[in-house]
Amino acid sequence: MTSTTKARVGFIGLGIMGQSMAGHILAAGHPLSVYNRSRDKAATLLAKGATCCETPGHVGARSDVIITMVGYPNDVEEVWLGAYGVLSRAHGALLIDMTTSSPELARRIESAAAEQGCRSLDAPVSGGDIGAREAKLSIMVGGAPEAFEEALPILQLMGTNIVYQGQAGAGQHTKMCNQIVIASTIMGVCEGLAYGKAAGLDLPTVLKSIGTGAAGGFHLNVLGAKIIAGDFAPGFFIEHFVKDLGIALAEAQHLKLELPGLRLAHKLYRIMIEQGHSRLGTQALYKFYGENA
Amino acid sequence: MTSTTKARVGFIGLGIMGQSMAGHILAAGHPLSVYNRSRDKAATLLAKGATCCETPGHVGARSDVIITMVGYPNDVEEVWLGAYGVLSRAHGALLIDMTTSSPELARRIESAAAEQGCRSLDAPVSGGDIGAREAKLSIMVGGAPEAFEEALPILQLMGTNIVYQGQAGAGQHTKMCNQIVIASTIMGVCEGLAYGKAAGLDLPTVLKSIGTGAAGGFHLNVLGAKIIAGDFAPGFFIEHFVKDLGIALAEAQHLKLELPGLRLAHKLYRIMIEQGHSRLGTQALYKFYGENA
Repeated sequence: MTSTTKARVGFIGLGIMGQSMAGHILAAGHPLSVYNRSRDKAATLLAKGATCCETPGHVGARSDVIITMVGYPNDVEEVWLGAYGVLSRAHGALLIDMTTSSPELARRIESAAAEQGCRSLDAPVSGGDIGAREAKLSIMVGGAPEAFEEALPILQLMGTNIVYQGQAGAGQHTKMCNQIVIASTIMGVCEGLAYGKAAGLDLPTVLKSIGTGAAGGFHLNVLGAKIIAGDFAPGFFIEHFVKDLGIALAEAQHLKLELPGLRLAHKLYRIMIEQGHSRLGTQALYKFYGENA
Repeated sequence: MTSTTKARVGFIGLGIMGQSMAGHILAAGHPLSVYNRSRDKAATLLAKGATCCETPGHVGARSDVIITMVGYPNDVEEVWLGAYGVLSRAHGALLIDMTTSSPELARRIESAAAEQGCRSLDAPVSGGDIGAREAKLSIMVGGAPEAFEEALPILQLMGTNIVYQGQAGAGQHTKMCNQIVIASTIMGVCEGLAYGKAAGLDLPTVLKSIGTGAAGGFHLNVLGAKIIAGDFAPGFFIEHFVKDLGIALAEAQHLKLELPGLRLAHKLYRIMIEQGHSRLGTQALYKFYGENA
């Protein structure tokens, strides 16, 4: 199969993860059009043969499949539905939003896409920079089942655990489940280690005892080890996590569901942002306990 | 080596875990004296050759090493320091409290033990019924290093991950770290699943997406699967967990450390007890969200 028989793909949002993800698609032989607000982030992909577009609409006009991986729900809305957005010029295309965004917006995009004869999916991911680089993302997909089948060969270029979760918005809802679990888990890890430190324990030795049992997992064993080493560099930025938790809280409220752990974690992370820590990694919540002890 | 050259061991507290743990010691050829408030729980061990004593003091009088695995700090205090307690009659013995109890009490027991020429350790465990049955407990030890060395051959009959954590109370403090991490983690798992259900997702399918990533671990993958199956049977009783969280909160207060996640989990679990759920497993916190949604 030559590359000309492959679906033409558009990719919008070339952050750290987006660049890796778009790179896998290009490497698989798909003609690739890209758009990014900061144009310099496209350089590596352009050097490998991608085409740079002036607006998201231009990406939409020249692509069979358009993928977005941008920042906030406002960005998602503008890129898809704005005056210069993808849907201003796309027809008959398959749209895939991989940003972590609002389930409600995913449903609105699906309706707007249908009016243009397009199919759409919400397909947020977990796995972070490393998962994106190694094409091992977990991808949670919402939308019509036929659109999922159509998208699968493209999604398989980026991830290994690709699960159809239900109708439009279900991918975003699943990602919210993930973030809600994580929110309180990080809080527990930070509190457990802060307690250990205050009690005069040697924290690496504590991890030897508690890291192999029921408390063990990514947050205690990986982020906990970073906390102990004083490493607060971002794997995942606090400001992005607060965005996600804000979406989850708003959706929970809409569902008339009270989630006090989520509410508390959101509050503590907002305090972290007020203290100037928005660009640290999520494990820096530990500072809340240290600095407020 | 014949059994008569082996240390004489006393074991007090023959609950589900205590019976398994004492059984391993007896099977290794140690002469075993036991005491339990409900005498019928000693039957299996007596049939295998253990000796039943009338009081903890009697256990103390006839043992080189005395182990306790009882319920609450009040029980620990009575068994060691009470009028008929171990220390009323023990001399020159090694005392090991494996109950999850208060670090402050562990220090008091060490002082009282020293007055009788005894050594003492606090050595709480994690790993539950199964870990006790399979002799694979994680054991977190506080006390004098020489006492730890002396106890190690006995502890190795019950556990695989045996870590010296520091002076008297350090074992209990380490267990508190574990329970503090777990408290918020369970809250996160219950909230994430409650959200998923309210959003209309299929929860087993959600677990396929989020169970393999950063949110994964014992609580999401094992207890989460139980929650989804409606199985709230106890692996660990809510009433015992509330005891542990109460100890952790009191110690944190003593350390002037504010732990809002722990405080919240303790509050929610106390509501569970008020609602009559004290004898359900910790995963039953999920009911709080279901019944209050």
